[in-house]
Amino acid sequence: MNKSMIRYILGSVLKIEGTLLLLPCLTAVIYQESEGIYFLLTAALCVALGMAMTFRKPKTSIFYLKEGCIATSLSWIFLSLFGCLPFYISGEIPSFTNALFETISGFTTTGASILEDVEALSHCTLLWRSFTHWIGGMGVLVFLLAIIPLSGGSNINLMRAESPGPSVGKLVPKMRYTARLLYGIYIGLTVIEIVLLLAGHMPLFDSLCTAFGTAGTGGFGIKNDSLIGYSSYIQWVVTIFMVLFGVNFNAYYFLLFRQFKKALSMEEVRYYFLIIFTAVAVIAFNIHSMCAGAFDAISKAAFQVASIITTTGFSSANFDLWPQTSKTILVLLMFVGACAGSTGGGIKVSRFVILCKTVVKELSSYIHPKIIRKVKVDGKPVEHEVVRATNVYFITFMILFSFSVLALSFEGKDLVTNFTAVAATINNIGPGLELVGPTQNFMHFTVFSKYVLMFDMLAGRLELFPLLILLHPTVWKDMLSQRRPKKLDR
Amino acid sequence: MNKSMIRYILGSVLKIEGTLLLLPCLTAVIYQESEGIYFLLTAALCVALGMAMTFRKPKTSIFYLKEGCIATSLSWIFLSLFGCLPFYISGEIPSFTNALFETISGFTTTGASILEDVEALSHCTLLWRSFTHWIGGMGVLVFLLAIIPLSGGSNINLMRAESPGPSVGKLVPKMRYTARLLYGIYIGLTVIEIVLLLAGHMPLFDSLCTAFGTAGTGGFGIKNDSLIGYSSYIQWVVTIFMVLFGVNFNAYYFLLFRQFKKALSMEEVRYYFLIIFTAVAVIAFNIHSMCAGAFDAISKAAFQVASIITTTGFSSANFDLWPQTSKTILVLLMFVGACAGSTGGGIKVSRFVILCKTVVKELSSYIHPKIIRKVKVDGKPVEHEVVRATNVYFITFMILFSFSVLALSFEGKDLVTNFTAVAATINNIGPGLELVGPTQNFMHFTVFSKYVLMFDMLAGRLELFPLLILLHPTVWKDMLSQRRPKKLDR
Repeated sequence: MNKSMIRYILGSVLKIEGTLLLLPCLTAVIYQESEGIYFLLTAALCVALGMAMTFRKPKTSIFYLKEGCIATSLSWIFLSLFGCLPFYISGEIPSFTNALFETISGFTTTGASILEDVEALSHCTLLWRSFTHWIGGMGVLVFLLAIIPLSGGSNINLMRAESPGPSVGKLVPKMRYTARLLYGIYIGLTVIEIVLLLAGHMPLFDSLCTAFGTAGTGGFGIKNDSLIGYSSYIQWVVTIFMVLFGVNFNAYYFLLFRQFKKALSMEEVRYYFLIIFTAVAVIAFNIHSMCAGAFDAISKAAFQVASIITTTGFSSANFDLWPQTSKTILVLLMFVGACAGSTGGGIKVSRFVILCKTVVKELSSYIHPKIIRKVKVDGKPVEHEVVRATNVYFITFMILFSFSVLALSFEGKDLVTNFTAVAATINNIGPGLELVGPTQNFMHFTVFSKYVLMFDMLAGRLELFPLLILLHPTVWKDMLSQRRPKKLDR
Repeated sequence: MNKSMIRYILGSVLKIEGTLLLLPCLTAVIYQESEGIYFLLTAALCVALGMAMTFRKPKTSIFYLKEGCIATSLSWIFLSLFGCLPFYISGEIPSFTNALFETISGFTTTGASILEDVEALSHCTLLWRSFTHWIGGMGVLVFLLAIIPLSGGSNINLMRAESPGPSVGKLVPKMRYTARLLYGIYIGLTVIEIVLLLAGHMPLFDSLCTAFGTAGTGGFGIKNDSLIGYSSYIQWVVTIFMVLFGVNFNAYYFLLFRQFKKALSMEEVRYYFLIIFTAVAVIAFNIHSMCAGAFDAISKAAFQVASIITTTGFSSANFDLWPQTSKTILVLLMFVGACAGSTGGGIKVSRFVILCKTVVKELSSYIHPKIIRKVKVDGKPVEHEVVRATNVYFITFMILFSFSVLALSFEGKDLVTNFTAVAATINNIGPGLELVGPTQNFMHFTVFSKYVLMFDMLAGRLELFPLLILLHPTVWKDMLSQRRPKKLDR
């Protein structure tokens, strides 16, 4: 195993984090908050440690899938461990477990909070909290790829491990170019959202935090009632941008290069919009009697559907009080998730398209056993390997999901709370139902349950396997041993 | 499509049902109940219709998978439609939907009841109700195979469609012999259970009904409180026989032919017992404080675990009042189900063994991408086709499950009720939690929800695809058209 390369990457990640921590420092200066000093201290620690770890260049930058996965998982764990320090040492979140939970929830763009009173936090803390969403949305390693070179095909092994969904990285052959382009689109959309929010008379600070939360499909609010208190205009801006950040970024790539036909013919994106429209229509009809007219019903339905399917987790209404059909639809959408190659979580629309087509194919094979069919997406046959990987992903997801619900059951909360708490974290959404509903928080869980949920958030964000292989004994043996790497290990 | 052969099979099934209906008639004679006349009328109707349908022999007995599936699904629908007539016309279940629900629940060995007062029913009705479990447990078509010959490889297409799990039919090359042997084991075990129940001073009538319910892993009780009122000895007899009927019948075949080593080395059976022992241990510990001592806790835990994992559905305690961990384990066991090749339902232990091994294989492939692994069961590599079919089965199951929960949500009941109602029917168990808990029933659902649940019961019993292809437009076109079958269709 190329341990020196993993060390080098972790060091670079820390240096980036140190730099990013300057934004909350700047906020503290503007608002003259003493908490800024803790961000500065953490930034200094990150940069110093990062420098030390990247002092010696690795002998070789060749990098295989296993190392890619390990580097990715460890990067996210490092990011969270250091990112939570300002919360902890400033005393704004006095328990380390809670501080870590909040930070992992931030970086994984989950938005599940342990805070009971968000408005009591300092501005710099609030900004860092929302900023972690923005950082985690696109991923730090993609950012790393945009600035540091890795040899040959090694980059793909990093990107494969971090990107949400199976399709990113096939856009253009040059990975660094892709990474920069993705960040360009990401920054561009974020800026447009900020401008539109400002146009709705939202204060700059609120606009920044809300846009960070939307772009990363995170969902941390800076108000105790999330976005309920803002104007209808602002809620609609957020609704539309949540949906936009849940679209496969390939579509924007095509639009950017004026390949409109290609962008419009993307099957995943079309199903994504179809699901959204259907869900909004059914829910709006279902909650109609609880709302002030049709427009209000549609606004609320659209906001919540967009928030849940893109796995953002903002709320403009307490959907835990909605009728059962609406709640069931939202719970199902939690699992569907956004498009692959977006900043959203969940199982992803493209995977569901493949899964459903696999079922239809199986049915047809009962009727015409001699005709050999292939699952097709976008008019092209899907490789057998992709179908297989999708199936295995779904199965692994369900098994991890079941064990997590069982683990949470030890503390005796009701099934709906446990079920939706796991659904809301493994799919990186944030709120669930009952005790983890939109007006509740995750404070009341035991330390054990909180670590289970943290694991689920990371597993969900990294698409399971990169994190799960950390549990494999071989990996630990390799990490701790001093022997030279064998051919086989790579 | 070989429609004349399908007609012939449906006719034979009706003739068998007519004959089987004589048992409740006999019961009516013994207990001098006037309701017996309705059973006799139905029996006569079945035989007459069966005669008419089997009067003309089919031109060819060649039979493909599609026809096998259609014949199987239709047989089960016919069985239920005619089987529910005595309930309906006697007025003991005045609503046709309810009568059909109860009968489908019987034949599919689910045991979910719409009856609020079981003890008010006549003896002949109670016996028929329990007897449907026994008939459905092994399957009518297996019985048909045991008595009527089908040409060449055609039988396997019938058996494949009806047998629970993927493994039956590979026991011995001669299908009729297999079918007879399976029925032999089935009858043998049932008789032993009846004798043991009689030895515990259970009345003959109760023993018969209880044994039928256990053998078919059905779960209809003849008392309002299921088996709570019987002695500890009787509860243990039932516990042990529920477990025995959930074992893959191949194991009994091996034992019968003194291949003890083969029987003991069956991986599925070993995992099945491992899961049972673990679940009993955890639940007994969890409910300890609610019970009268350790023995009581173990008895109750063992009974409920056996009842749920084998998908029987009897109860010796109201587990809806148990702590969350116990309830969550029971809900998870609902999906695991019994062994393939047993009379139990659920997804089946063998499928879960394959699914879990697939996940482990995937993890290993991240670590050693160049080593090609095969999933192995019983020391032998599992064919790629079996792994693929298992994956697709799981996915189809989850999709059908989600849509059913959504369909039930329309009537506004809570999520746990809807979730466990679907789990309890699609896995052919019977009781769930909350409003469908062990002391509740399914009466309160709307007609629409009841038909959704009936569909789920049939889909679960027939392992999804044979029933689902009935929804395929091609099948309907073929069934209604008069044209000669093309090569392709077969």
